[in-house]
Amino acid sequence: MSQEFLDFVSIQLTKNGKAALYVQLYDALRELILNGKLSNGYLLPPVRKLAAFLQVNPGTVVSAYKLLEQNGYIFSRSGSGSYVAEITVAEEASYQPPDIESEFEAIPPRTSIPTNCLDFATVMPPPDLLPIDDFKYVLMEVLDRDQGYAFTYQDSQGFKPLRQAISAYLKEQGIKAQADNVQIISGAQQGIDIVAKAVLRYGDYVFTENPTYPGAIAAFRSRGAKIVEINMEDDGINIQELEAKIRSFRPKLIYAMANIQNPTGYSYSLTKRNRLIGLARRYNAMILEDDYISELDVADAPLAPLKALDRDQRVIYLKSFSKIFMPGLRLAFLLMPPSLVAKVLAIKHTSDISTSGLTQRAFDLYLRKGIWQKHIAAIRRIYLERYQTTMAAVEQFLPPAVTCHRPRGGLTCWLALPEGVSARQVVQQAEERGMLLTPGTAFFPRHAPDRFIRLSFAVVSSEEILHGVKMLGEIITQDCLQKSAK
Amino acid sequence: MSQEFLDFVSIQLTKNGKAALYVQLYDALRELILNGKLSNGYLLPPVRKLAAFLQVNPGTVVSAYKLLEQNGYIFSRSGSGSYVAEITVAEEASYQPPDIESEFEAIPPRTSIPTNCLDFATVMPPPDLLPIDDFKYVLMEVLDRDQGYAFTYQDSQGFKPLRQAISAYLKEQGIKAQADNVQIISGAQQGIDIVAKAVLRYGDYVFTENPTYPGAIAAFRSRGAKIVEINMEDDGINIQELEAKIRSFRPKLIYAMANIQNPTGYSYSLTKRNRLIGLARRYNAMILEDDYISELDVADAPLAPLKALDRDQRVIYLKSFSKIFMPGLRLAFLLMPPSLVAKVLAIKHTSDISTSGLTQRAFDLYLRKGIWQKHIAAIRRIYLERYQTTMAAVEQFLPPAVTCHRPRGGLTCWLALPEGVSARQVVQQAEERGMLLTPGTAFFPRHAPDRFIRLSFAVVSSEEILHGVKMLGEIITQDCLQKSAK
Repeated sequence: MSQEFLDFVSIQLTKNGKAALYVQLYDALRELILNGKLSNGYLLPPVRKLAAFLQVNPGTVVSAYKLLEQNGYIFSRSGSGSYVAEITVAEEASYQPPDIESEFEAIPPRTSIPTNCLDFATVMPPPDLLPIDDFKYVLMEVLDRDQGYAFTYQDSQGFKPLRQAISAYLKEQGIKAQADNVQIISGAQQGIDIVAKAVLRYGDYVFTENPTYPGAIAAFRSRGAKIVEINMEDDGINIQELEAKIRSFRPKLIYAMANIQNPTGYSYSLTKRNRLIGLARRYNAMILEDDYISELDVADAPLAPLKALDRDQRVIYLKSFSKIFMPGLRLAFLLMPPSLVAKVLAIKHTSDISTSGLTQRAFDLYLRKGIWQKHIAAIRRIYLERYQTTMAAVEQFLPPAVTCHRPRGGLTCWLALPEGVSARQVVQQAEERGMLLTPGTAFFPRHAPDRFIRLSFAVVSSEEILHGVKMLGEIITQDCLQKSAK
Repeated sequence: MSQEFLDFVSIQLTKNGKAALYVQLYDALRELILNGKLSNGYLLPPVRKLAAFLQVNPGTVVSAYKLLEQNGYIFSRSGSGSYVAEITVAEEASYQPPDIESEFEAIPPRTSIPTNCLDFATVMPPPDLLPIDDFKYVLMEVLDRDQGYAFTYQDSQGFKPLRQAISAYLKEQGIKAQADNVQIISGAQQGIDIVAKAVLRYGDYVFTENPTYPGAIAAFRSRGAKIVEINMEDDGINIQELEAKIRSFRPKLIYAMANIQNPTGYSYSLTKRNRLIGLARRYNAMILEDDYISELDVADAPLAPLKALDRDQRVIYLKSFSKIFMPGLRLAFLLMPPSLVAKVLAIKHTSDISTSGLTQRAFDLYLRKGIWQKHIAAIRRIYLERYQTTMAAVEQFLPPAVTCHRPRGGLTCWLALPEGVSARQVVQQAEERGMLLTPGTAFFPRHAPDRFIRLSFAVVSSEEILHGVKMLGEIITQDCLQKSAK
């Protein structure tokens, strides 16, 4: 055997195996790269030679290389071949959800967080927007009403009156729901983790939007799943790409945020919603719909979630009550296809038995009394103003080469910088001038392009928005000038 | 068919179905009640008659009735039978969204739960022993003090002041601890799940005591681990068996409850504690110590946990604050070897981001003000009396062939029946006479012997203990006589 194939002797491909040959080859090469057996800069064998060695069609190798390249494992130089890229296990391991940095610890001084810094990074409302007094009131009422029962074990599926209140609430949103199909969970992250456990087995494929919420990637990876990213466009996921990849990979699960996606703020067109569901049906995948922040959709005609279009029980709908409004409470729910109810319940039980009964009872009352709805209405007014100010400021102060597709609402907008300007550098320069931003790189599982910035207006006043965006415009303009001067 | 069963013809029970027969029956009856087919005041058929009609064991009907009663669907009048209760959501006026079926489950009528059934199965204190007023007080104080911060994200590792209060509390118990090595979690079950994720990979071996807590087995299995059981003896795990098996299997983790084990109530001798740690060291296994209920150790000289003997950071110490005292709160912690801190933190983040900040802040105050310690002292006095009554009753009323190693405290005792007497049968006969027990079979991962019963004195009065244990003695004696007559 020729010396040059020593690195590839471990590769075993099975015809008529579960996955297509080129997917098997992709997996095997990816494994070698992640193990460090093929390290950064390694020159891969030419297509025909590897095909001959493995006794497969050259097209198989071409397809595997192409996939590796799409997913950032290798890159090719025309005329010289394909090389292993600088992606390492370390990069995957050190991949930290970005929100964790902007958290604070312990009891912060309540008087004033020093505000000489312009915070466009935090995506959680400031504590003074949280409905303390109302919640205190329902807590008291629950403790008076239920006494010790508020502290006894809850049914693992969740406090039944709360599940009923949720299904009533969903009906108002156009989603048919029964309390029996609602599972109460301790926050959206737990929901993703539980669904991953229920649907995925080691080695299964999961599709995610690209970019996406890093906490979801972490949950899928912890389950041993393989992530395949599908690019987001301003009217939703790239359907051609989805269609091509779904045929090859046969994913078990597609993780999607159809309304005001995190981090892009993009929303799916109705056509893409239906195409996504249709493809999932044809290729027998489940969809996990993370309804991230649709309460802050400020467009005239709000879009229904995927779940409202789900005719054959293929969509698992995930909604957090705590994420944006009371993040520390840890309360969310899953609305599930009936086929998953028992399995998810068993996994919830193994994960943490049940979600805090006190929280559930208090929130139940909060919903039933309509305080939740009242709170949303109030917070929408506040954020509508910040949203409009931000959009106007982006238009006025950022150079026209910066593109930003206007989101339907939410707390952030997603800026694409002009070709050649480094987002990391812009973020750093802004930081030096006292302005915090989130670089887009945090939201790409791998091979992150260095040209996006997420700008959040969750904790800044209109005045700060004008001031900050103007400053950002200056920084980008300067970078552009330097670039063109070179 | 007799006229009196017309209301029940729709009931279909499936043997070997997914749910136990009594659960199926509970569901069916509940459905009839909610549909209004069986309305308020309806007199349910006597246990034996319904059992004969449905062709099931009377114990099945007893258990179903008992569940219905616990959940407020029916009530019983001694001597006259069981009646359908007035199902209403109008417990409090505001509780009436029109869309919602008029069903409630978790809020039992607070007036008086009929107590003609003797509950020796529940291991959680009754709601009236839970410290509501104190907890309400600290909740209020936290909300006044921290305002919106009580609802913002917590550090994933946990609210730092609480971690500090815990490490101070541990020092009082003889365990060296630093706040940096404490991880706050949402109950002990989550702790086991997170440790499983941190330490185990697919196919790894885990050792557990035999019998043990079934929730731990479920968590390990969900991780793809292989379980190897080591038998418990009345002075701790069987060390010879452990030594022989640890050499063959090289487990990654040993799950142990050294103090008042669940379900046996056995505690390890000091020698066995040291041997266990020594073997773990020699064969490089971690130990997960679940400190189940050591607060209720009522022996004169309390035994230190394994963690206090852990000289080379091999023991992960798990302690729940909620399990016994406020089960619905979901609050526990892990004290970890420094080497695991970062990994466990990352897994906690992937699992549910963080544990409820409000709960953490309130419990922090609860610990700092010494209310927790005061509550434990109070509850110890109550349980000491029940414990002593139970031990005396077991000695007085059970035949000498029933063995029961006196536990050091806790809420249960573990009865070994004479050879040839079936524990399942005894439990069923007791159920028919209105006494609930837990058969030991539930606690063996496989090959469960049919001769153990767990008798819990968590929710029974001294009078009920005497009455119940006497009845149990009669049942066992009768079974023994029948056995020897054959």
